Amino acid sequence: MRHIRFPTSDLRPPASERRVLLGHGSGGKLSADLVEELIVPRFSNPALDALGDSAVVAIPEGGGRLAITTDSYVVDPIFFPGGDIGDLAVNGTVNDLAMAGADPLYLTLGMVIEEGLLFSDLERVLDSVKRSADSAGVKVVAGDTKVVPRGKADKLFLNTSGVGLVPAGFVSARENIGPGDAVILSGTIGDHGVAVMSKRAGLGFATEVRSDTAALHRMAAALRRLGGALRFMRDPTRGGLAATLCEACRGRPCGVEIGETVIPIDPGVRAACDLLGLDPLHVANEGKMVAFVAPERADEALAAMRGFVEGNDAAVIGRAVETRPGMVVLLTRAGGKRIVDLPAGEILPRIC
Amino acid sequence: MRHIRFPTSDLRPPASERRVLLGHGSGGKLSADLVEELIVPRFSNPALDALGDSAVVAIPEGGGRLAITTDSYVVDPIFFPGGDIGDLAVNGTVNDLAMAGADPLYLTLGMVIEEGLLFSDLERVLDSVKRSADSAGVKVVAGDTKVVPRGKADKLFLNTSGVGLVPAGFVSARENIGPGDAVILSGTIGDHGVAVMSKRAGLGFATEVRSDTAALHRMAAALRRLGGALRFMRDPTRGGLAATLCEACRGRPCGVEIGETVIPIDPGVRAACDLLGLDPLHVANEGKMVAFVAPERADEALAAMRGFVEGNDAAVIGRAVETRPGMVVLLTRAGGKRIVDLPAGEILPRIC
Repeated sequence: MRHIRFPTSDLRPPASERRVLLGHGSGGKLSADLVEELIVPRFSNPALDALGDSAVVAIPEGGGRLAITTDSYVVDPIFFPGGDIGDLAVNGTVNDLAMAGADPLYLTLGMVIEEGLLFSDLERVLDSVKRSADSAGVKVVAGDTKVVPRGKADKLFLNTSGVGLVPAGFVSARENIGPGDAVILSGTIGDHGVAVMSKRAGLGFATEVRSDTAALHRMAAALRRLGGALRFMRDPTRGGLAATLCEACRGRPCGVEIGETVIPIDPGVRAACDLLGLDPLHVANEGKMVAFVAPERADEALAAMRGFVEGNDAAVIGRAVETRPGMVVLLTRAGGKRIVDLPAGEILPRIC
Repeated sequence: MRHIRFPTSDLRPPASERRVLLGHGSGGKLSADLVEELIVPRFSNPALDALGDSAVVAIPEGGGRLAITTDSYVVDPIFFPGGDIGDLAVNGTVNDLAMAGADPLYLTLGMVIEEGLLFSDLERVLDSVKRSADSAGVKVVAGDTKVVPRGKADKLFLNTSGVGLVPAGFVSARENIGPGDAVILSGTIGDHGVAVMSKRAGLGFATEVRSDTAALHRMAAALRRLGGALRFMRDPTRGGLAATLCEACRGRPCGVEIGETVIPIDPGVRAACDLLGLDPLHVANEGKMVAFVAPERADEALAAMRGFVEGNDAAVIGRAVETRPGMVVLLTRAGGKRIVDLPAGEILPRIC
């Protein structure tokens, strides 16, 4: 006769198979458990720990203005070479603050979770949020969790909103750009988009392309020391370098001329773009910035950027010109000229 | 012979059939069109119109602290009796700021749109966001749009994050609650949850129950005049009045005793809850608040709340007691006592 042994402990699945349930978004016991188990231990700080309706923080001293931004992240897949949706969401919002000239201070984290997401995946993303927030020196002070039934979202969407402080007197505005200004790019383009695409498509390139996701606020703060000679900063994310340059000069008396041969591109990215039929100028970046700088301070700006890991490959890629107001012109490798435009529609859906 | 006339103008579908395309989330031309067509005309203000990476605003004068909050909205359906996902998102975040004692100032708006959403539906929601933001006196200063393929989201998810100013010296904290404090509820419970559920289920009740979605910051500001006699404020949203009261006293030396007969409930809500097997204490509200007030100032607080439309039905529903620390007890209609707990899991998914 065989003994049948009934389990004496709890009947929950092993930790590696735990999944998010609809009830984790209910505002009831499971919601409270989720916050206490996953959120508070990771992100503990006085403003968050109060678990109030809002975080309450001191108003930054020293004058200046507040920068406020928001971004939702729907990247597919949520894990990709070089990063995941968690560090993407932190770095992306830190960078939006940095490009406005702000020192990032506080982040909020909103999660829309598809029922059935593995706890282990959620924890991995939250670890990544924590690590990148710590690394950037920003605090996650408020959060929100919603769960929707299977098939009503895709694993996990994040929203990070951010608040930062812009030092008194500093202005980054495309209206400041004048003829002759140098256009400086902080490094290679297309890495993030190609990393996500190749993972999604299951393409195995000879050398793996990794996302460039990185926080740029320290590099941007260093550039602020140029004062008014730093005209305008922006990070070329969705729509790529092309969209950023087009937006910088649209409707303005200046245009931009860039040189194909001087734009840094990783050979792996170039090969992947050739294969996939993509123009690297349209492919998203998540750790790059463009700065328009007065020509006489361009060398100084370039040196400042190269002093940071994320600006090692910085290069002057062109200049603002009066000849074609509002337009971006590429001087091609072959010696011709090509007008660079915004991508018309969707090239790479769910890239960030 | 018949003449075949080819259209001479554009081939786009009529306005009423226009739909959101993946390309509207690309960061390219369609994205720019969407922002210029739908967002800028509605929400125009200097901080938003700059269309920078972040909005830059003045730091509020007069001292105090910042309140920061975030909420995602995944309500299904997006239109329901008494409101829609747009005013819900504005009022919900305004209320989170208000409950922390803040005067709401700025909102951000993040949208995750399912490909194929009717433009007319999106415009209706944005009109609603605009109307409720204007009505609350807050500015939408930053936004973000993502589009995901059909079947990867459900029509529209919104995130609103908010920044407000908490006057110097004001503190709303559950730690301030002491024995004898009056528990004041600003009006009827369960209206929002029942309105959404009945619309979703296609239930036709004799009298339509409408969502109570409303901004509470003016009423909350009036209560702030009570100073320290106002111990704690919170809005009972997901998880209902039960969750709010349980969270207020969890782990504290006080409990809460409330009377079933004095809790205001609309007869239509009561009937619907009976039919659906719901406890109205667990059903979500979106325009109600609970205030804990020193007993000697309770009448004053009640009068202040009743001076606002959204507080017309305010009532003292109970008090903080020492007898059952950390617990919420309901004195039932029948004269008994029942312990009120957090809902364990999901009762009403996607209610907000």
